[in-house]
Amino acid sequence: MKLVPLGEKVVIRRLDAEEITTGGIVLPDSAREKPRQGRVLSVGDGRLLGDGTRAPHQVTEGDRVLFTPYGGTEVNIDGEELLVMNESEILAVVT
Amino acid sequence: MKLVPLGEKVVIRRLDAEEITTGGIVLPDSAREKPRQGRVLSVGDGRLLGDGTRAPHQVTEGDRVLFTPYGGTEVNIDGEELLVMNESEILAVVT
Amino acid sequence: MKLVPLGEKVVIRRLDAEEITTGGIVLPDSAREKPRQGRVLSVGDGRLLGDGTRAPHQVTEGDRVLFTPYGGTEVNIDGEELLVMNESEILAVVT
Amino acid sequence: MKLVPLGEKVVIRRLDAEEITTGGIVLPDSAREKPRQGRVLSVGDGRLLGDGTRAPHQVTEGDRVLFTPYGGTEVNIDGEELLVMNESEILAVVT
Amino acid sequence: MKLVPLGEKVVIRRLDAEEITTGGIVLPDSAREKPRQGRVLSVGDGRLLGDGTRAPHQVTEGDRVLFTPYGGTEVNIDGEELLVMNESEILAVVT
Amino acid sequence: MKLVPLGEKVVIRRLDAEEITTGGIVLPDSAREKPRQGRVLSVGDGRLLGDGTRAPHQVTEGDRVLFTPYGGTEVNIDGEELLVMNESEILAVVT
Amino acid sequence: MKLVPLGEKVVIRRLDAEEITTGGIVLPDSAREKPRQGRVLSVGDGRLLGDGTRAPHQVTEGDRVLFTPYGGTEVNIDGEELLVMNESEILAVVT
Repeated sequence: MKLVPLGEKVVIRRLDAEEITTGGIVLPDSAREKPRQGRVLSVGDGRLLGDGTRAPHQVTEGDRVLFTPYGGTEVNIDGEELLVMNESEILAVVT
Repeated sequence: MKLVPLGEKVVIRRLDAEEITTGGIVLPDSAREKPRQGRVLSVGDGRLLGDGTRAPHQVTEGDRVLFTPYGGTEVNIDGEELLVMNESEILAVVT
Repeated sequence: MKLVPLGEKVVIRRLDAEEITTGGIVLPDSAREKPRQGRVLSVGDGRLLGDGTRAPHQVTEGDRVLFTPYGGTEVNIDGEELLVMNESEILAVVT
Repeated sequence: MKLVPLGEKVVIRRLDAEEITTGGIVLPDSAREKPRQGRVLSVGDGRLLGDGTRAPHQVTEGDRVLFTPYGGTEVNIDGEELLVMNESEILAVVT
Repeated sequence: MKLVPLGEKVVIRRLDAEEITTGGIVLPDSAREKPRQGRVLSVGDGRLLGDGTRAPHQVTEGDRVLFTPYGGTEVNIDGEELLVMNESEILAVVT
Repeated sequence: MKLVPLGEKVVIRRLDAEEITTGGIVLPDSAREKPRQGRVLSVGDGRLLGDGTRAPHQVTEGDRVLFTPYGGTEVNIDGEELLVMNESEILAVVT
Repeated sequence: MKLVPLGEKVVIRRLDAEEITTGGIVLPDSAREKPRQGRVLSVGDGRLLGDGTRAPHQVTEGDRVLFTPYGGTEVNIDGEELLVMNESEILAVVT
């Protein structure tokens, strides 16, 4: 069972706290908006442009990404919690 | 009797709880927005683009889809409850 | 006396409860937004596009349509109550 | 003294209650938005399009029109109360 | 000393009550939005279009205009109170 | 040390009260929005258009300008208070 | 470990108070919005345009920039606090 996101949407598996710490990124403890991290599982076929073509996604399957905390919709598929969000809610790829 | 949705709209028959569980997708019990699932019954002729053409739908009749919970309008046709929503309210196709 | 709607607008004669039941569509009794039904009486010459042309309407005179409940403006012409609404407020054609 | 409206604007002389009744259109007594009627006195040179040209008006001088009640700005010129509104606030031409 | 407005802006000298009465336009005493009148002193080089060109103004220096009451910014230059507003806030030219 | 504004932004040095009075422009004492004046120090390379080109600025270095009071961001550079604002917040050039 | 921002986003390392004072820019003590400064660490591949191409960034790696205070999302990577923001939130390059 697999989720194929539509258009500009991507499916992301959130990294847990341990993975994040190991990776060296610590969330700030300030009251400001906290980014979260995850791994891209699948991407849609891109944002629809005015001329009917689609802009290719900037992230690809397997990318580790930072995203804004309040974006996306949670879904639990085959027992695993995933996020579906627009690519515009992704801040950066962590390389 | 059939519903032919307009433009970027699609008609969806919601899956019931049993079908969803069998399918392995369990809705999260968090307070966040909960996606729902359904089967696409029919699609419109696509979103109107700036040049007057239409962008073809990404979903097709028969697709099992995840959609945002507060989108769409309910309608009961021939005793069956259906949803009419914009394709943009569909998060992903479940394959 | 006739109403010729402008641009993307259409004139609709609402179906009464009896016609709807006969037609097999029962409005849900939930608290959610309830679609209504009607018959298209006349259509404008279509939505204005960026290049000055107009997109033809998707509905035509005589179509039975489902529309969102809070759209449109009521008008009583020659003793008959009609609705003038944008085509985008129409959900689907009932065939 | 004459008002020459700009762009997508039109000048309208409201019909009084008597003319409306004679014409067979009675305003609904419901609490919903009530359309009003008037006669088009003059039109601007049309809505500005993205390429700098203008879309011609759909109404012309002399047309009897139905318009939304809260649109337009009232002005009293030479003792006569007129309305200046965008064509988009006009629902339909009454023929 | 002169004000050269930018782009779609125009500079207007408001007509005083006496000039307006002489001219035959009386403001309505209703609670609705009251248009005001003025004389166009100077115009910018027009609204910027998507392709980088500019749409020429529809009003020209010397035009007597009706404008919406809450638009524009007041400025007192050389002892004279002027208004700088977007042309879109002008309803009509009075001829 | 110099500020090079981005895109449609301009850097402005506000004129003080004395300069303004000398120049003959007195701010109105009404409760309405009060324009302020300044001198353009530097301009960006213009607003980005849909096709990727940039619209040249209408103001140039050295222009004396009137701008809306609540626009712009204050910055103190080398002891001097400057404003960075979008050109759209400039009402007119004073010549 | 590196952050590769997406599209119109840039990664910025905030300058601390000492660096700013040395550089001669003192934040105003007024209640108005206070700009902040930083150094650009990396930039995305530019804002997506309507035709599917991307507008190149105006800032480049190494630029010292002034940005609006409430823009951007904080992230702590490898123990260093960084900001990810849209280029449009950058006011000017300090040279």
